[in-house]
Amino acid sequence: MIKMIYNTFFQRSLTSVRDLTRQDFELLFDVTDKLIQHNSNYNICSGKTLGCIFFEPSTRTRLSFESAMSYIGGNTLATSNILSSTQKGESLADTIKIISLYSDVLVLRHPLDGSSKFASEISTKPIINAGSGTEEHPTQTIQDLYTINKETKKIDGLKIAIVGDLKYGRTVYSLLYGLSSYDVTVYLISPEALRIRSDSIYDIKKKLQLTESTELNDYIHDLDVIYVTRIQKERFQDKEEYFKVRGSYVIDNSVIKKLKKNSIILHPLPRLDEIPNNIDTSKHAKYFKQAEYGKYTRAALLGLILTKNGFEHK
Amino acid sequence: MIKMIYNTFFQRSLTSVRDLTRQDFELLFDVTDKLIQHNSNYNICSGKTLGCIFFEPSTRTRLSFESAMSYIGGNTLATSNILSSTQKGESLADTIKIISLYSDVLVLRHPLDGSSKFASEISTKPIINAGSGTEEHPTQTIQDLYTINKETKKIDGLKIAIVGDLKYGRTVYSLLYGLSSYDVTVYLISPEALRIRSDSIYDIKKKLQLTESTELNDYIHDLDVIYVTRIQKERFQDKEEYFKVRGSYVIDNSVIKKLKKNSIILHPLPRLDEIPNNIDTSKHAKYFKQAEYGKYTRAALLGLILTKNGFEHK
Amino acid sequence: MIKMIYNTFFQRSLTSVRDLTRQDFELLFDVTDKLIQHNSNYNICSGKTLGCIFFEPSTRTRLSFESAMSYIGGNTLATSNILSSTQKGESLADTIKIISLYSDVLVLRHPLDGSSKFASEISTKPIINAGSGTEEHPTQTIQDLYTINKETKKIDGLKIAIVGDLKYGRTVYSLLYGLSSYDVTVYLISPEALRIRSDSIYDIKKKLQLTESTELNDYIHDLDVIYVTRIQKERFQDKEEYFKVRGSYVIDNSVIKKLKKNSIILHPLPRLDEIPNNIDTSKHAKYFKQAEYGKYTRAALLGLILTKNGFEHK
Repeated sequence: MIKMIYNTFFQRSLTSVRDLTRQDFELLFDVTDKLIQHNSNYNICSGKTLGCIFFEPSTRTRLSFESAMSYIGGNTLATSNILSSTQKGESLADTIKIISLYSDVLVLRHPLDGSSKFASEISTKPIINAGSGTEEHPTQTIQDLYTINKETKKIDGLKIAIVGDLKYGRTVYSLLYGLSSYDVTVYLISPEALRIRSDSIYDIKKKLQLTESTELNDYIHDLDVIYVTRIQKERFQDKEEYFKVRGSYVIDNSVIKKLKKNSIILHPLPRLDEIPNNIDTSKHAKYFKQAEYGKYTRAALLGLILTKNGFEHK
Repeated sequence: MIKMIYNTFFQRSLTSVRDLTRQDFELLFDVTDKLIQHNSNYNICSGKTLGCIFFEPSTRTRLSFESAMSYIGGNTLATSNILSSTQKGESLADTIKIISLYSDVLVLRHPLDGSSKFASEISTKPIINAGSGTEEHPTQTIQDLYTINKETKKIDGLKIAIVGDLKYGRTVYSLLYGLSSYDVTVYLISPEALRIRSDSIYDIKKKLQLTESTELNDYIHDLDVIYVTRIQKERFQDKEEYFKVRGSYVIDNSVIKKLKKNSIILHPLPRLDEIPNNIDTSKHAKYFKQAEYGKYTRAALLGLILTKNGFEHK
Repeated sequence: MIKMIYNTFFQRSLTSVRDLTRQDFELLFDVTDKLIQHNSNYNICSGKTLGCIFFEPSTRTRLSFESAMSYIGGNTLATSNILSSTQKGESLADTIKIISLYSDVLVLRHPLDGSSKFASEISTKPIINAGSGTEEHPTQTIQDLYTINKETKKIDGLKIAIVGDLKYGRTVYSLLYGLSSYDVTVYLISPEALRIRSDSIYDIKKKLQLTESTELNDYIHDLDVIYVTRIQKERFQDKEEYFKVRGSYVIDNSVIKKLKKNSIILHPLPRLDEIPNNIDTSKHAKYFKQAEYGKYTRAALLGLILTKNGFEHK
């Protein structure tokens, strides 16, 4: 059966999570559902090529894009090592331009804010931001929101804690912007030293019902979603401080016991020891599901960018 | 025409050559024959993705898997460099788990015995052992036995010499386990210092008619298969000893002259100077055929693991 | 509609630009036009595999081949790192032989003249020279001539300047050999120190109407094609000499103003500062078009080598 969709993604770049509306998320969720149900490839992107330009190390994001592209029938250029061009003195702009000529869509990870926007102005093909600067990781947010919606059957009305290093993780800021399209209550749980950078979310503070705290325990009994992030030792000048705070945010069995029946634990991964391995088999643990959904949400995004109505005819 | 097969490989890991029965080998040989005859791709694994995790360098094994996957229509993730995740402090178990979520089947090479079994317990997808520890290299054995069967029209009844470094090569142990499913006579020809580790084959000694010797010359006239392996200088503490033994196992023209009319020379490659280049054009030389068959035997294995009856309908 | 072609490329190596006739170029141009018009993949090389062997760094050439292979439905082996085999002491000949067994066609870049010819004698599959020694880069020449023909509607009768480092760039020599199949006037514009190596083009001097000069300005008003190359600082022992000559060959706005209405500027890329970025939007600037055409000319070549008449039936 053919379902008409208005594909707002077709041939457009996705540089910022701030450009995604609730309708965009819902379209992505719909297409992702179809891709998972179908459980075989759509092959709608046969002959299409994905170019990856990564200026920061990334295994899981790059592989999930590559795997997603393969799932819909396309190929990925082996562009992880782009040193050769830059060795010859080529400008970054020329490198991006050239790789865009050889690709149908590009994925960029870069340490600078705005790099993705800059690239989209140079590139002849759509750019997907796969992580830039300290605030943007829109495809992670799509994956996170898809997981929440899939595993709790809704997003509106949920009580969501984001726990750990809220200062440095781009995932956190991106997620908050994504959540601002929904009606949710958010608890920001972190050590003092790793509190959210308040300026970076000033324009969504009113849309989200935000509570900041250092104590996960005060809210744990009432949460629907616990989104855990890594606390990296390197962030602390005082290592004793690190060892002190680290323990308070470990999701071990004593924490699990306090959870509501249907609450879920998420983590963008990779994890260190903030979630011990023995939690993996808990019914609350959904972080590997979340990782797996990342393949299908990215396949949905790539397919929508590359084909006007490729998903309708299946 | 549809031929019904009972596909024992479907969605199962292959971690040890010891798990392969004679029936398993015969199924693999059948499917490989079909793939070679067809001489065009089957495309049965379109949209399927292979993940490669290599903790030891390997060109030919990795490329033969990648080429095999391509032959049946699938893609391979560029996972050769998995440093990025481990740099971020992720455990090996999590890395394997995540890559398995993005793949439909995984190939693992690792220096430790049992690594493949360990990985198969973590992975959500089937694992193929592409070489582990000192004893296991099951896909090399499938390729070796396929070549013997194809080039001599049988395996039962053959007289087979395995020549060179029998102590360290995992290929040798794997091959002996594979041969133990057949009725063959095996000559283990090596210098004293590189004799087979007897303990490692204790349970198949009775099944194989084994003879150990340092003298290839004593048996050369009567052999059907000469399976040559590298002798690596690094194995010898006494370098003079190395230069002494090396010469006795070089398959040069004087050795070739003594061979039975239909005998074949195999080598898992890469070779050093144990087979000089001028032997490559001899009718006995089948080691490049053997390498080529590795593509098709692996395509057969991958196809059987990934599709229940994909090969039947062609 | 089926158009019968005599495919002279089928299953043959392309090691030298000197082997390409005018008819060969025209066949390649025809097929390239079809591929671009079609604007979707032909999928004629599904299940086919390209092996890349690069002994010199290359981003754009490698990626354009990979992208081209993807466009016609095939895959590319991740063979950029071939250290593993050579670490084990394998000869180059064996490495090439083995990779050829796992591929349907190979692409080789190597610093030595004749490397490609040598490889084609070892390989069991066709070899495409992707740059060897100081004189051969046949696929760049195909791309260059295609661009000239496409953008000026002809090649015969054109006045073409090749500007910059004419001594060291293999692109220049390859292009001159390609142009010698046509009736063109060529101006070789370079600083004294970077003049063409006259011996290397002795056999085509008569076929091309060649003029050597250090002054671009003397010819600029009358040119149809300005083919600009990089001038690399490292080529100069006297750095002051470098800074002196560099300026005279920069294609800036003052040069652009002198150009004939329909003249075009080409560059094999990567560029340094010989063409400033602000020229990119000029109607004369065709170097990014040229880069893009490289994908389709290579797809045409790969398709013709891999399929006898695959392009006819579309």
